Amino acid sequence: MACSASDLAPLLSTTVNSTGAATYLCSQFTTISNQLSDTSYAVNNTYLLFSAYLVFAMQLGFAMLCAGSVRAKNTMNIMLTNVLDAAAGGLSYYLFGYAFAFGSPSNGFIGRHFFGLEDFPTPLADYSFFLYQWAFAIAAAGITSGSIAERTQFVAYLIYSTFLTGFVYPVVSHWLWSGDGWANPAKSDNNLLFGSGAIDFAGSGVVHMVGGIAGLWGAFIEGPRIGRFDRNGQSVALRGHSASLVVLGSFLLWFGWYGFNPGSFLIILKSYGGDAGGYYGQWSAVGRTAVTTTLAGSTAALTTLFGKRLLSGHWNVVDVCNGLLGGFAAITAGCSVVEPWAAIICGFVAAWVLIGCNKLADKLQYDDPLEAAQLHGGCGMWGLLFTGLFAKKAYVNEVYPNKPGRPYGLFMGGGGKLLAAQIIEILVILGWVSATMGPLFYGLHKLKLLRISAEDEMAGMDLTRHGGFAYAYDAEDDASGKSSFMMKKVQPSKNTTPNGDSPAINV
Amino acid sequence: MACSASDLAPLLSTTVNSTGAATYLCSQFTTISNQLSDTSYAVNNTYLLFSAYLVFAMQLGFAMLCAGSVRAKNTMNIMLTNVLDAAAGGLSYYLFGYAFAFGSPSNGFIGRHFFGLEDFPTPLADYSFFLYQWAFAIAAAGITSGSIAERTQFVAYLIYSTFLTGFVYPVVSHWLWSGDGWANPAKSDNNLLFGSGAIDFAGSGVVHMVGGIAGLWGAFIEGPRIGRFDRNGQSVALRGHSASLVVLGSFLLWFGWYGFNPGSFLIILKSYGGDAGGYYGQWSAVGRTAVTTTLAGSTAALTTLFGKRLLSGHWNVVDVCNGLLGGFAAITAGCSVVEPWAAIICGFVAAWVLIGCNKLADKLQYDDPLEAAQLHGGCGMWGLLFTGLFAKKAYVNEVYPNKPGRPYGLFMGGGGKLLAAQIIEILVILGWVSATMGPLFYGLHKLKLLRISAEDEMAGMDLTRHGGFAYAYDAEDDASGKSSFMMKKVQPSKNTTPNGDSPAINV
Amino acid sequence: MACSASDLAPLLSTTVNSTGAATYLCSQFTTISNQLSDTSYAVNNTYLLFSAYLVFAMQLGFAMLCAGSVRAKNTMNIMLTNVLDAAAGGLSYYLFGYAFAFGSPSNGFIGRHFFGLEDFPTPLADYSFFLYQWAFAIAAAGITSGSIAERTQFVAYLIYSTFLTGFVYPVVSHWLWSGDGWANPAKSDNNLLFGSGAIDFAGSGVVHMVGGIAGLWGAFIEGPRIGRFDRNGQSVALRGHSASLVVLGSFLLWFGWYGFNPGSFLIILKSYGGDAGGYYGQWSAVGRTAVTTTLAGSTAALTTLFGKRLLSGHWNVVDVCNGLLGGFAAITAGCSVVEPWAAIICGFVAAWVLIGCNKLADKLQYDDPLEAAQLHGGCGMWGLLFTGLFAKKAYVNEVYPNKPGRPYGLFMGGGGKLLAAQIIEILVILGWVSATMGPLFYGLHKLKLLRISAEDEMAGMDLTRHGGFAYAYDAEDDASGKSSFMMKKVQPSKNTTPNGDSPAINV
Repeated sequence: MACSASDLAPLLSTTVNSTGAATYLCSQFTTISNQLSDTSYAVNNTYLLFSAYLVFAMQLGFAMLCAGSVRAKNTMNIMLTNVLDAAAGGLSYYLFGYAFAFGSPSNGFIGRHFFGLEDFPTPLADYSFFLYQWAFAIAAAGITSGSIAERTQFVAYLIYSTFLTGFVYPVVSHWLWSGDGWANPAKSDNNLLFGSGAIDFAGSGVVHMVGGIAGLWGAFIEGPRIGRFDRNGQSVALRGHSASLVVLGSFLLWFGWYGFNPGSFLIILKSYGGDAGGYYGQWSAVGRTAVTTTLAGSTAALTTLFGKRLLSGHWNVVDVCNGLLGGFAAITAGCSVVEPWAAIICGFVAAWVLIGCNKLADKLQYDDPLEAAQLHGGCGMWGLLFTGLFAKKAYVNEVYPNKPGRPYGLFMGGGGKLLAAQIIEILVILGWVSATMGPLFYGLHKLKLLRISAEDEMAGMDLTRHGGFAYAYDAEDDASGKSSFMMKKVQPSKNTTPNGDSPAINV
Repeated sequence: MACSASDLAPLLSTTVNSTGAATYLCSQFTTISNQLSDTSYAVNNTYLLFSAYLVFAMQLGFAMLCAGSVRAKNTMNIMLTNVLDAAAGGLSYYLFGYAFAFGSPSNGFIGRHFFGLEDFPTPLADYSFFLYQWAFAIAAAGITSGSIAERTQFVAYLIYSTFLTGFVYPVVSHWLWSGDGWANPAKSDNNLLFGSGAIDFAGSGVVHMVGGIAGLWGAFIEGPRIGRFDRNGQSVALRGHSASLVVLGSFLLWFGWYGFNPGSFLIILKSYGGDAGGYYGQWSAVGRTAVTTTLAGSTAALTTLFGKRLLSGHWNVVDVCNGLLGGFAAITAGCSVVEPWAAIICGFVAAWVLIGCNKLADKLQYDDPLEAAQLHGGCGMWGLLFTGLFAKKAYVNEVYPNKPGRPYGLFMGGGGKLLAAQIIEILVILGWVSATMGPLFYGLHKLKLLRISAEDEMAGMDLTRHGGFAYAYDAEDDASGKSSFMMKKVQPSKNTTPNGDSPAINV
Repeated sequence: MACSASDLAPLLSTTVNSTGAATYLCSQFTTISNQLSDTSYAVNNTYLLFSAYLVFAMQLGFAMLCAGSVRAKNTMNIMLTNVLDAAAGGLSYYLFGYAFAFGSPSNGFIGRHFFGLEDFPTPLADYSFFLYQWAFAIAAAGITSGSIAERTQFVAYLIYSTFLTGFVYPVVSHWLWSGDGWANPAKSDNNLLFGSGAIDFAGSGVVHMVGGIAGLWGAFIEGPRIGRFDRNGQSVALRGHSASLVVLGSFLLWFGWYGFNPGSFLIILKSYGGDAGGYYGQWSAVGRTAVTTTLAGSTAALTTLFGKRLLSGHWNVVDVCNGLLGGFAAITAGCSVVEPWAAIICGFVAAWVLIGCNKLADKLQYDDPLEAAQLHGGCGMWGLLFTGLFAKKAYVNEVYPNKPGRPYGLFMGGGGKLLAAQIIEILVILGWVSATMGPLFYGLHKLKLLRISAEDEMAGMDLTRHGGFAYAYDAEDDASGKSSFMMKKVQPSKNTTPNGDSPAINV
C-alpha cells in the first residue's frame, strides 16, 4: 500500500476524473481493510493456539497429580493412562470426535461433518480451534481415570477412554458449545432454552461433570481398593506416594487453567463498543476471566486450609491443592460473566462442597483415589448453579451478545430462567453420562474385564502389567548384582514379589 | 468498513458536496483508526497476559526449587507455603495490595484507589496488568519463605506473608513503578529523583531485594537450623533431598523469567520511530531484554561452575543452578537498558557476589536453606549498581522516554546521577524492609510464635504439623499392614517418630 | 491520526488546492500504513518470542527425561550437562554460533556476520530470531549427551558440547535455513539444489539427526556401560531411576514441540491470498502444523504401545514416551507441508523405525541410555524421507513461495527431485557429523579424556565428581548423626562407598 500525492492530485484537481479519484482512494481502503482482517486472524489465532498449548499443559499437570496421588506401585499404570488420554484422544478426536462435537450444520444432538478434518478449515473454524477442542476432550478422560485408579484392568481403560472421548464427551460439548446445540446460550437460531440457554463458558459441566460422573460410576461399580475401609467400615487413608508430584501437578493445572478459562473466548480482538470507550473490549473480559479464575481457586485453597485444620488438626498441602482445584472446577462455568467478588463466593462454597462430598463418600464407602468425582463432579455442579445465581447482566450480554433482554443471574436480578437452564444442564449431563458410561462399566464388570485380581492389586500393577516398579533410588542397584536383569516377556505371576525386601525391584 | 467508489465518485465529481465527500472519507479513517486501536489493545493484552502466566509459572518453579532444597521431612511444609503465597496473595492483592501499589492518583509513598478492584479497569490499567502485578507480588513472599525454611512455625509464616505481600512489597513497588512513585524514572510529573529516578525495570530491588532482606531478618532472628554449624562453628551442609526438584525448579524459573523481564515492558506494540526505521521498536527491545536475561544467567552459571570447581573440587549442579538464578536476579533491574555484552559482565560479577555472600554467611553462622538472602538480596543489590554503571543512553531514552537529557550509566558516559539514584533505592529498601519486617519477626520471636521446638525440628514439620511424610516409595506399604492408618486429628506429640525405622511413615 | 472533515472539506471543495487535498489524504494513509507495519512487527515478534520460550522449555523436558532415564547415581551428572547445554550454548551462540549460522551475506557453507550480535538487529532478523535459534542450538547438544550418559568424563562433555553447538550444528543450520545455504529450499538466489532444495522445516535433520549421529559416534567409541550386556552378549536393561521424571520430561517436550514446529514459520501474520479467501493464511498453516505434529506423535505412541505389548508382554509407559518422541522427531521435517492424514503414516512408521533401530542396537551391542541415536537419528532420517514422499503441492508452494513449478512429494505426484534432495541432506549430515564429531570423540578417547574409570562408573559419577548423591529421602538423615558432614574438597577415591548400606549418602 502506497499513497502517492503526485498521482492523486491530478485526479482530484480537474474533477473530470472523479471516478479515477474514487477508485484510487477506495483501492487504498480495500488494501487497508484486508490487512486489518489478516491482522485480526493472526492475533486471534496466536491467542487461541497459545491458549491451546496451556490447556495441553494441564494434561501434564493431571499426569503428575495422578502419579503423586497413587501408591508408588501403580505409578507407571496411571501415568500411562494419562499419556494415552492425549495420544489416543488425538487420533479419535481427529477421526470422529470433533465431527460429533462441531460438525455443523447439523441438529441439536450431534454433529456430522469434518470427519478426519475433511473440508477443513472453514471461515468459522481453523486448525487452532480443533487443537483447542482436542485439548479439552482429553481432559475429561483424565478425570475419570483418576476415580478408578489403582484397581482397573488396562484393557478396560482403553475401552472406556475411547468411548468417553470419542462419543460421550463430544455429544455434550455439541449441546452446549456448537451453534446447533440445543442448550447453547449463543445458539445461532435464537431459539434458546428457556430464552436463555445454559451458560457453561469453559465447561464446569461439559468437561468436569462429565469426567466426574463417569468416574463415579466406574469407581462405584468396581468398589473400593483393598484396605481402603477397615472391618468396621472406617475410612483408612491410602496415601499417595509423592506430595511433590501432587503440588507440581496442581500448579501445572493452575497454569494451564489460564488457557482453559480465558482461552474459551476463542478470540481476543473484539470490540464491545459501548460507553466504556475503546479501551474496554473482549481483551478486558479475557483478563477479568483470568482474575475470577485466580480468585476462586485462591479462596477455595484458603478455605480448605483452615477448614481442614479444624477438621483434621493439621495443615495439609495435598488437601489444599484439591481445594484449589475444586475452586477452579467451580468457577469454570461462570468465569466470564461474574464479578471478581462473586468468584470469591464461588471458591468459598466450592471448598465446602468438596469437603462435604468427601465426607459423604467416606460414609458411603465410596473410594476415589483422586477425589475426582467429588471434585470435578461436585464442584462442577456447584459451578453451574453459581452461574445461574451470580451472572451479571452486562457481562452476559457482552459475552453472549445480540439476544436483547436475555435472563441473567437470579441474585443479580435476572430472574430464574438462567438458573432453570443451568439445572436442566446438570440433570441432562447426569442422565446422559449415567445412561452411557454406567452400562459400559457394568458390562465390563460382568465380563470380568474391569477389576484386576486381588493378587495384582496387592503387588501393584507396575510390577505385574507395566514392566516393573517406577523408581530405583537405590544407589547400588547394579553393584549388588541381584537385580536389573529381566526386561522381556514379563509373566505377571512369576515376577510379582509382594513380600520382596528391596524397594527397587528392577524387573 | 467498506469503501464504494460509486458512492464516492459523485461526491467528488461535482465538488458541490465537498462536505459530503470529506465526511465520507473521514468516517472511513475513523473506522480504521478505531480498528487499529482495538488491535493494539488486543495485541498488548495478549502479550501481557501470557507474560503474566509465565511469571506465575515461576511460583511453581520456586515451589520445586524450595522443595528440593530442604530435607525430605520438611517438604510438605515448604510446598504449602509456596501454594499459599499464590493463593493468599491472590486475595490480599485483590483486596488492598494492588490499591497500595497502583491506586493512583495518589502520593509518592502509597496508593489509595482500586481496593477490591473497584472502578476497574481504566484506560490506564486493565485486568491483565492487575494479574501481572499479582504474579510479581507473590514472588517476593516466596523468596522470604526460602530463607526461614525448615524451622519456622506455620502461623508465623501466615502472619509475615500477609504483611509482606499486602503492605511492605506493594509500597516499594509504588515508589518505583507507579506514576506517582517518588523514585520512578518515568514519574508523571517529571520531578525525578536526581533528575533521573532509579531504574529497576523488573525488580532487582523491588522484588528480589525486598524478599531477600525480609528473609535475612527472619533467618537472622531465628538462628540456624540444628546441626547447621558444628561445635567449632564450622559449616555443615544440610543438603536438600532432591537435586532433580532443584533443577526442575531452576529451569522453570528460567522459563518464567522470560515473562518477568521482557514482560515488564507491559506493551509490545509501540514504535520507537527514529533513524533505525520501522523494523526497530519496542518489540526489538523486548527481544533484546530476553537476550540480556539469557546471557546474564548463562554467564553466572558458567562462572559458578568453574569457580566452585576451584573452591570445592567438584562440579555441582545445585551450585550452578543457584549461580544461574543469581545472574537472573542481578540483570532484572537493567535488563532493558543494557547491551548484551554488558549482561555478560553482570552475570560474571553476580556469580562472585553470590559466592562471596555465601562465604560471609558461613563465617557469620547465618543459615539460609535456599541462600535466598544472599542470592536475591546480594545479587539484586549488585543488579541495581550494575544498572547505574552500564545503562546505555539510547536504550534509557527509549524505555523511559520524553525526559530529554536524562542521566544514564556512569561507565557509558552518563554521569553519576543515575548511580546515585540506584544507591538511594538500595538504602531505602534496606531501611524500609528492616524497619517493617525486622520488628515483625522480632515480635513473633518474643511471642514464641516464630521458631518450632527442637523436637519438632528433629522430627520434621511434615510429620508433626502437616499430616505425614511427603513420600512413600516403599512398594509394600499396605501389604506390611503396619502403616497407613491414621489420618485424622493428628496430635503432634504422639505421632512423631524421630527414631522410627521406616522411611515411609504414613501417618 | 485524526481526520477532520472541516479541514478536509475546503481542500476538496475549491479543487484549487488539489495538491493540499492529496497531501492531506496521503499523509493519513501513510500514518495508517506505518501503524499496520508496527502492528505486524509486534504480532510476529510476540509469536516468535513465545515460541522461543516454548522451545526453551524443551531443555527442561530433556533434562527431566535424561534424569529419569539414567540410574540414580548419575542424576546430578546428566542434569548438569543439560543446564550447561543451555548456559554455555547461550554464550557460544551469542559469540559465534549465530554468526556461523545466519551471518549473511555469506557463502553457501558458513556465515560470517553478527559475531557477538554486532550490527544487530537488522530488518531481516530481530533479537527474537536470535533467541529462537539459540533455543534450537542447545537442543542438539542435549540429544548427544543422552547417548553417552553414565560413563563420560565431564571435561569431555565440556569439549564436545562447545564444538557441537558452536560449530558443527550452526554450519548445518546455515546450509538448510540461511538465505545463502546451499540446500535451502527458499534460497535467495533461486539456484536450488535439484531445483528444489531439501525441506527440513523444523529440523529432523538439522537438529535431530545432527544430535543423534554425534551421539552415535560418542557412544560407539566409548562402548557400552558396565553390565549393559552380559557375558553372552545378551542385552541387560539398566533401567532409569524414575519413570515419573521420564513422563514429566516427555510431556514437557511435547509441550515445547508446539514452539519447535509451528514456531518455525517465524511469522504468523502473512496472507496466502488465493481462492480460499482471507480466513486462510499463514495462521492456518501454523495451526495445521500443530495438528500434524500432534497426530504424528500420538500415532507413534499408540503404535509403540501395541507393538511393544506384542514384543515384550507388558504395557510400558517409558517405551510409549520414547515412541511418542520418535514420532515428533520424524514429523519435524515435513510438519508444515503434509496433510494431517499423512502425519499419521509418518508416526506409524516412526514407531517401527525406533523399534527396529533398538533391535539393531541390541544386536550390535550398542548402548545408548536415552536411545538418542536411534530415536533422533533414526526417526529424524525417516522424517526427511517421509517429507520427500508426502509433501503436498499446495502447501509446499505456500510455505516456500515464489518458485513456480517446484517439486514436491513423490507419492503426491511431485516427482523424485525433492526426495533426491532429502537423501542428499541425509548423506551430507551423516558425512559432516561423522567427519567432525567422530575424530573429536576418537581423539578424546586416545587422550583418555572420554570415559570414566570402572570404579567411578560403579560408584556413580554423582558421588565421585558432583558432590554427592542426588537424593536423600531418609527422614532421619541428620538425626542419625552419621552423615551430612562433608561438602568440601571431595576426593573421589576416598568418598565413594559403592557397598555402603545407606541409600542416602550425604557426602
